[in-house]
Amino acid sequence: MRSDQIRQGRLSGERSGDIEHFLASMEADRWIAEADLLVDMAHLLGLRRQGIIDEAPARALMAALLDLHDHGIPKEAFDEKFEDVHAGKEAYLIDRVGEDYGGRLHMGRSRNDEVATCIRIRLKQEIIALVRSLTELRRTLLDVAAAHIETVMPGFTHLQHAQPTTLAHYLLAYEQAFSRDTARLREAYARLDVSPLGSAAFASTGFPLDRAYTARLLGFSRPAPNSMDAVATRDFAIEVLSDAAICMTTASRLCEELVLWSTAFVGFVQLDDVYCSSSSIMPQKKNPDVAEIMRAKAGTVAGELAAAITITKGLPMSYNRDLQELTPHLWRGVEAARQSIPLLSGMIGSATFNAERMAAEAGRGFSTATDLADLLVREYGLPFRTAHRIVGRAVRYGSLDLATLDAAAREAAGISVVELGVTEEKITTVLDPRHAVALRSITGGPAPAAVAVQLSEQKDLLARDAAWVEETDAALSNAFRDLILESRRFAA
Amino acid sequence: MRSDQIRQGRLSGERSGDIEHFLASMEADRWIAEADLLVDMAHLLGLRRQGIIDEAPARALMAALLDLHDHGIPKEAFDEKFEDVHAGKEAYLIDRVGEDYGGRLHMGRSRNDEVATCIRIRLKQEIIALVRSLTELRRTLLDVAAAHIETVMPGFTHLQHAQPTTLAHYLLAYEQAFSRDTARLREAYARLDVSPLGSAAFASTGFPLDRAYTARLLGFSRPAPNSMDAVATRDFAIEVLSDAAICMTTASRLCEELVLWSTAFVGFVQLDDVYCSSSSIMPQKKNPDVAEIMRAKAGTVAGELAAAITITKGLPMSYNRDLQELTPHLWRGVEAARQSIPLLSGMIGSATFNAERMAAEAGRGFSTATDLADLLVREYGLPFRTAHRIVGRAVRYGSLDLATLDAAAREAAGISVVELGVTEEKITTVLDPRHAVALRSITGGPAPAAVAVQLSEQKDLLARDAAWVEETDAALSNAFRDLILESRRFAA
Amino acid sequence: MRSDQIRQGRLSGERSGDIEHFLASMEADRWIAEADLLVDMAHLLGLRRQGIIDEAPARALMAALLDLHDHGIPKEAFDEKFEDVHAGKEAYLIDRVGEDYGGRLHMGRSRNDEVATCIRIRLKQEIIALVRSLTELRRTLLDVAAAHIETVMPGFTHLQHAQPTTLAHYLLAYEQAFSRDTARLREAYARLDVSPLGSAAFASTGFPLDRAYTARLLGFSRPAPNSMDAVATRDFAIEVLSDAAICMTTASRLCEELVLWSTAFVGFVQLDDVYCSSSSIMPQKKNPDVAEIMRAKAGTVAGELAAAITITKGLPMSYNRDLQELTPHLWRGVEAARQSIPLLSGMIGSATFNAERMAAEAGRGFSTATDLADLLVREYGLPFRTAHRIVGRAVRYGSLDLATLDAAAREAAGISVVELGVTEEKITTVLDPRHAVALRSITGGPAPAAVAVQLSEQKDLLARDAAWVEETDAALSNAFRDLILESRRFAA
Amino acid sequence: MRSDQIRQGRLSGERSGDIEHFLASMEADRWIAEADLLVDMAHLLGLRRQGIIDEAPARALMAALLDLHDHGIPKEAFDEKFEDVHAGKEAYLIDRVGEDYGGRLHMGRSRNDEVATCIRIRLKQEIIALVRSLTELRRTLLDVAAAHIETVMPGFTHLQHAQPTTLAHYLLAYEQAFSRDTARLREAYARLDVSPLGSAAFASTGFPLDRAYTARLLGFSRPAPNSMDAVATRDFAIEVLSDAAICMTTASRLCEELVLWSTAFVGFVQLDDVYCSSSSIMPQKKNPDVAEIMRAKAGTVAGELAAAITITKGLPMSYNRDLQELTPHLWRGVEAARQSIPLLSGMIGSATFNAERMAAEAGRGFSTATDLADLLVREYGLPFRTAHRIVGRAVRYGSLDLATLDAAAREAAGISVVELGVTEEKITTVLDPRHAVALRSITGGPAPAAVAVQLSEQKDLLARDAAWVEETDAALSNAFRDLILESRRFAA
Repeated sequence: MRSDQIRQGRLSGERSGDIEHFLASMEADRWIAEADLLVDMAHLLGLRRQGIIDEAPARALMAALLDLHDHGIPKEAFDEKFEDVHAGKEAYLIDRVGEDYGGRLHMGRSRNDEVATCIRIRLKQEIIALVRSLTELRRTLLDVAAAHIETVMPGFTHLQHAQPTTLAHYLLAYEQAFSRDTARLREAYARLDVSPLGSAAFASTGFPLDRAYTARLLGFSRPAPNSMDAVATRDFAIEVLSDAAICMTTASRLCEELVLWSTAFVGFVQLDDVYCSSSSIMPQKKNPDVAEIMRAKAGTVAGELAAAITITKGLPMSYNRDLQELTPHLWRGVEAARQSIPLLSGMIGSATFNAERMAAEAGRGFSTATDLADLLVREYGLPFRTAHRIVGRAVRYGSLDLATLDAAAREAAGISVVELGVTEEKITTVLDPRHAVALRSITGGPAPAAVAVQLSEQKDLLARDAAWVEETDAALSNAFRDLILESRRFAA
Repeated sequence: MRSDQIRQGRLSGERSGDIEHFLASMEADRWIAEADLLVDMAHLLGLRRQGIIDEAPARALMAALLDLHDHGIPKEAFDEKFEDVHAGKEAYLIDRVGEDYGGRLHMGRSRNDEVATCIRIRLKQEIIALVRSLTELRRTLLDVAAAHIETVMPGFTHLQHAQPTTLAHYLLAYEQAFSRDTARLREAYARLDVSPLGSAAFASTGFPLDRAYTARLLGFSRPAPNSMDAVATRDFAIEVLSDAAICMTTASRLCEELVLWSTAFVGFVQLDDVYCSSSSIMPQKKNPDVAEIMRAKAGTVAGELAAAITITKGLPMSYNRDLQELTPHLWRGVEAARQSIPLLSGMIGSATFNAERMAAEAGRGFSTATDLADLLVREYGLPFRTAHRIVGRAVRYGSLDLATLDAAAREAAGISVVELGVTEEKITTVLDPRHAVALRSITGGPAPAAVAVQLSEQKDLLARDAAWVEETDAALSNAFRDLILESRRFAA
Repeated sequence: MRSDQIRQGRLSGERSGDIEHFLASMEADRWIAEADLLVDMAHLLGLRRQGIIDEAPARALMAALLDLHDHGIPKEAFDEKFEDVHAGKEAYLIDRVGEDYGGRLHMGRSRNDEVATCIRIRLKQEIIALVRSLTELRRTLLDVAAAHIETVMPGFTHLQHAQPTTLAHYLLAYEQAFSRDTARLREAYARLDVSPLGSAAFASTGFPLDRAYTARLLGFSRPAPNSMDAVATRDFAIEVLSDAAICMTTASRLCEELVLWSTAFVGFVQLDDVYCSSSSIMPQKKNPDVAEIMRAKAGTVAGELAAAITITKGLPMSYNRDLQELTPHLWRGVEAARQSIPLLSGMIGSATFNAERMAAEAGRGFSTATDLADLLVREYGLPFRTAHRIVGRAVRYGSLDLATLDAAAREAAGISVVELGVTEEKITTVLDPRHAVALRSITGGPAPAAVAVQLSEQKDLLARDAAWVEETDAALSNAFRDLILESRRFAA
Repeated sequence: MRSDQIRQGRLSGERSGDIEHFLASMEADRWIAEADLLVDMAHLLGLRRQGIIDEAPARALMAALLDLHDHGIPKEAFDEKFEDVHAGKEAYLIDRVGEDYGGRLHMGRSRNDEVATCIRIRLKQEIIALVRSLTELRRTLLDVAAAHIETVMPGFTHLQHAQPTTLAHYLLAYEQAFSRDTARLREAYARLDVSPLGSAAFASTGFPLDRAYTARLLGFSRPAPNSMDAVATRDFAIEVLSDAAICMTTASRLCEELVLWSTAFVGFVQLDDVYCSSSSIMPQKKNPDVAEIMRAKAGTVAGELAAAITITKGLPMSYNRDLQELTPHLWRGVEAARQSIPLLSGMIGSATFNAERMAAEAGRGFSTATDLADLLVREYGLPFRTAHRIVGRAVRYGSLDLATLDAAAREAAGISVVELGVTEEKITTVLDPRHAVALRSITGGPAPAAVAVQLSEQKDLLARDAAWVEETDAALSNAFRDLILESRRFAA
């Protein structure tokens, strides 16, 4: 195959392999090679429609493009001497149909708008896939929660036993966060859904392209409104990386729980063996490796985000080659999230929760002491801060029975709770974790009725998000199918 | 004033100043101290409305709160021995109205939901201010662009002269990016506009609070749906930091242009003296310091974002004290953006653009060579890649006149452009930068008519964003005004 | 006091407070104000020594400087209209001794070399303080380890019980890491210990300064070898931030242990109350707040490091104002570490370790299964991988007694361990955690003798590091004392 | 080949490809596969020497290992079902020599110490290569500087023309920074040059390994002193990433210069064509792509560093699977630096500097105004601040001739410089850039004599660093050669 077509006019000298490798984006280009063929077809149909290219070269080129689509882009097009797959593919086409035809595809186009269009196409597909896996994760969380509305467990603050709650309430907290991640990604999708094609190097082109037509062919909502912005911005990439980083930060928190909960100390959960590994030296080990790596993937995405911002920050308009180095960070960050979320869903869905252990721990560590203080307030009229101090003192003594409480009250507030009428029975009742949970029935609380409301609301929201995924995916797939049909019709 | 009310029940020992300082959030708490009083008032009205607190203590507390609101929170409340302003203020209230009354405000509440509510209130105000300054910056960009629709200048890729464009087209590229920043912040606002109040430590409370009522009083759209998520999540903080980082990344790019354009080499712009500094040693210097610092502020926001993600990543549910350390990063990041954007607007608005220098540079460096190649394609039927190679070769020879072009064509493609009919006149016409700009009239291009469309569309969008700012600001201010009126009515 | 002396020659226009605030570095300048006076004195002595300034103005200026040193820099010098304390102080001096004298101090100097010198001076002091607190932390770790050579506890991998070790061995792992942090900081100190003074704006100066003389007066090892590098580099700041980030990452890991170990689940440690907080709502809570915030401080330092790199990355030579924005990140990062390490030392030194709980957990979770596999290898000749598989299978069955082991061996390897001669007694012996620890006596292992070697080696290393702190601190303090003495002598 | 040997004892269930892929480190393992064979050989020689393994299995295993060394590790060993190459290789060995022999290699060893040893070996090789390329870059900088001691050019602050300097002085500033990078990497090398082997899972092993022996065989200075630290720490990785980030930050600054200097505006440098690319649409373009991508690589390394810190920060002892995800960041960061530095050296060495353009710009923008102010101080006794103000005012008027200066002096200071005796001739002399450079002959300055001193000192330093590279590389290579020889002798 011929060598690089683009250099040979202006520049001289043979490059070393080191330089070629340094400049090449071939590895990252595999992410967009398929999208690039669609872009070629749309651009070609557009050129023809506007009469910029004649029938014969257009049909020859289209036949060659369909061939690449049907049989794959040949390996030589990814040779690093071409710097990128766009140049590699052009060299292939010129080789195939001759320069007189092959050299016409790039009219009114630059790699700048071409690559920006490809990245957006692929990123839209990635977002759809990620949102789909988020809806599946949320469905799993809602299902498991629905089965554990009555499963009392301790809640923690500062990793200390704090107050009783239920597993349903706990999992719904995570589902809330993932529903916000879904919303962010949907908004990012809408924002990046504009076509750079036709922006050429940055100043658009003197050829009378119809950018709205190619945008429609490629499934975009419309052409990007300013041709310089269209090729120079990567804010959409930083935004999606940031959405992925936030999502993975939450996933990392949930994985941290799974790691803790599956220790011998806690024992709240038994992960399915397939998500665990053993040790090469310690035969007894069952380690929560998937959860650990997922926790680390959150760090990976954070790093890709930091890199993307740092790379972009100092660049003037319009295109600078630095932007090429940004793209692999985008794909690595998005991939880390897209791999993780389905496995997280699988891990939660297949886990065995130990309700007995949870119940046993729910009342430990004086976790219902707040309820005792509230009792002193509600039924015996003490100010909350006083009640808080009395109960705190009793805990320091090591017990919450009536005698200790009375001693604490005398010491910390100069009063007697016995004289106020507090009884051992009252104390026992409010210290029961189930009682504490049942009492917390206000909006957002862990009581079964309050949790049922949350479940119902979130199911509705999930249904809307799931519908968005299917509609958006279908619209995009249909556009691509139609584009290929139209291309075949034209080439036929 | 009494010492820390919260420690004294459970814990013993006197802390050193070092430990107190390490644990204290007083500096960051100044950001939320005012919001905290509103939260107190709303919570108190809610407690009374539900009959959880009696009339007498409620009125005494409300009077004290209004006093703080009217005369400011006393300095002692910020003493680091209290760890945070919430504890400091409670100690003050108890001191003022006695523990029997003062100890009742914290019923059904924890610092966890209190501080989360305060942060959201203040952050909403910050977003409104930042969006307002973004709308002003965009108005400035649109205004300056409108005055420079015909101001031809070189566009750059790789910082090399590339193709001619206009200053209007250039500035509109930035305006596009800032309009996306505006949209992101509006969406973040909508997402974080839910009230954590009533979530208490994380499990809500056994007191029958009406969370929808206090949410309304505080200008929130509704209560946060899950009490554990409400106190434990900080995804909204990371999201806003990330929005600010993206916005500042764009601002940094524009500042990079201003720094470059005001060098002696380029001379496209003269910044107003007030945005510049001189040197302590070199008397001739006029340095673009504001632009430089703004460029660096983008690095600051990126760092605050990295810190926020790193801090959050490994935390299990629900509240962990680590989150306290996150908040100063939020304020510093938001402040960097909020300080920068108005100055950027001022810098652009007051700058003198040197249209003559721009015009002189517009045609330099063979910047219209693409148009010559396009000419060979359009009028003489050459394949684009062939034309590209011929013109590139001519540039290597150092000139684009007919003779050189012909020599290049013979060498690079074995043809004669003279024989094809190309004339010196044709060449001269297409090499004129104004001609090149005028030709680029497709959607998004730099030709005056295309730019006029962009201007008009963006003005409409700006008007909608500006209306959002005013409506949202008014709604929030009205809510706070009504809350204080209601509080005064109650205390009277 | 007069207004900004530096602007008024070249620039016109009155700045708004917003711009002044944006440009001002006053808050960060408090870190270097004291060092700046030393730099002034050294520069003045140097100017006089080389005959560049006359006796009279030099003495008048020195008297004023000593006054500032003795009574503090007045508040007005920190007014933001001066941008930085250097300009503020110069305005003060001119006000005090008149422009004819006061205007001579800045000969042969720029703020660029002045501020770079100040930052290095202060940073050297900060490093000494941080290294001192690291040596104290290491001493604490060695002391606690020395007391717990026989305290058997479980070691963890993947947070699962893995193999028995001792508390001494555990703590010595951390001490190793902190000893490397010490070494890094000592090396950074040596590298940054060169004086920029005399580099002026970046090109040095035509005045015949003796840079070696002022370097010596200020306690530097020598002048920075290239005047452009001297003012433009901030690699030393990134290096120290990175050293601090690594150190805090380790501190965060240790804090994570303390948080885990003080949960009700684990109960290995009881932190002293002064390092803990209670809850505003839950009276029973004792939360490890200092450890949590310290964990978060590691995120803070990581963020400051990211900001410093991002700010510096795109800057050409030599000084750019962006660098001013870097300095606060440096101080915040260094301060986070310097505050944390002494508290970590205090937390460890005052903690109560529960040896009984540790011992009880040491054998749990089949933590000595490796020893059983090793036994099968060592005494009965099985290949390790076979033995590993047999023991792993037995664990899956739930027990490591002879019968289960034999069943597992038959199933997993088709052999009988009973027939090989394994006895219940052999098994019981090797499963004892104390036996497992005692056996691990090779270099670096947890057996008491091996730990004793580690303790002894690390004590020697610590002694050398502690000696470095004292010598370096003394040398620097002596240089400053001598400089002030010399200044007094001159002014007298 | 058999399936995963490690899982099958303890765990059940078949993993999906998704999970296997998520857990696998095969891609990163290619970096250490060769080192891993050396580790196997050393471990095997150690086992035999201590009598832990019998002659027959040891020789069979060694023969198989040498086979892998001589003919490469087979592709199957990298199948993702094995998670990592260590498990893959063990499966291969067992397949080859039978479980009775093959199952014995892992005695007294865990993947934890194995992988930590491999990473350190490979990282040492990478550091040597990076330091070597840094010495070559520094040699290039010194050579080019030596040729340009008299090449006067403008120096910049705030990217504004500031004062004249020389190209030699400019390049030496960068060489200083790269010499510090060299020092940092040498120190990092010394610190990480300890062998984890024998630490097993973290608690060492009951087998009587001689860790000093295997450390020596593998070219380490000594065994890591604490077995838990040895497997759990990755501070060395963060340190090297940070060293690489600092180095690349400097490289990015230099690339920023090259991009600026090769614009049509500046024209100081012509980069060799091989380091440039053209445009797919603009035939005239010659873009400094290598410099741009290198600038972006600095952002990449910063991102890898951020990821590494974030991943490590929250992990308790000892090994956690999260650490596996850190390693690819290490390799990517190190590779970015190792690829960049040689190309930077080549770019500088092959660049054509335009001394004429530099000279023409050296005196532009009143760049010698400081010298005029200094003249007023030195010869006419004005205070510096007064002289600074006068000259600044004259610049504002637009000229530095005698008449303007006199007018400025009258207005800004109420004096006449004509009356003081200043002449036009005096002014002309001090305004000459060559004069300004010649005058700056103090330590570190740009005057030829001062630059000669810098050159000479840095050449000495470079020679020492280059010697270190050769010695260290030879020592390591010799150790590996000896190890293989010894292994062959044993297997023979």
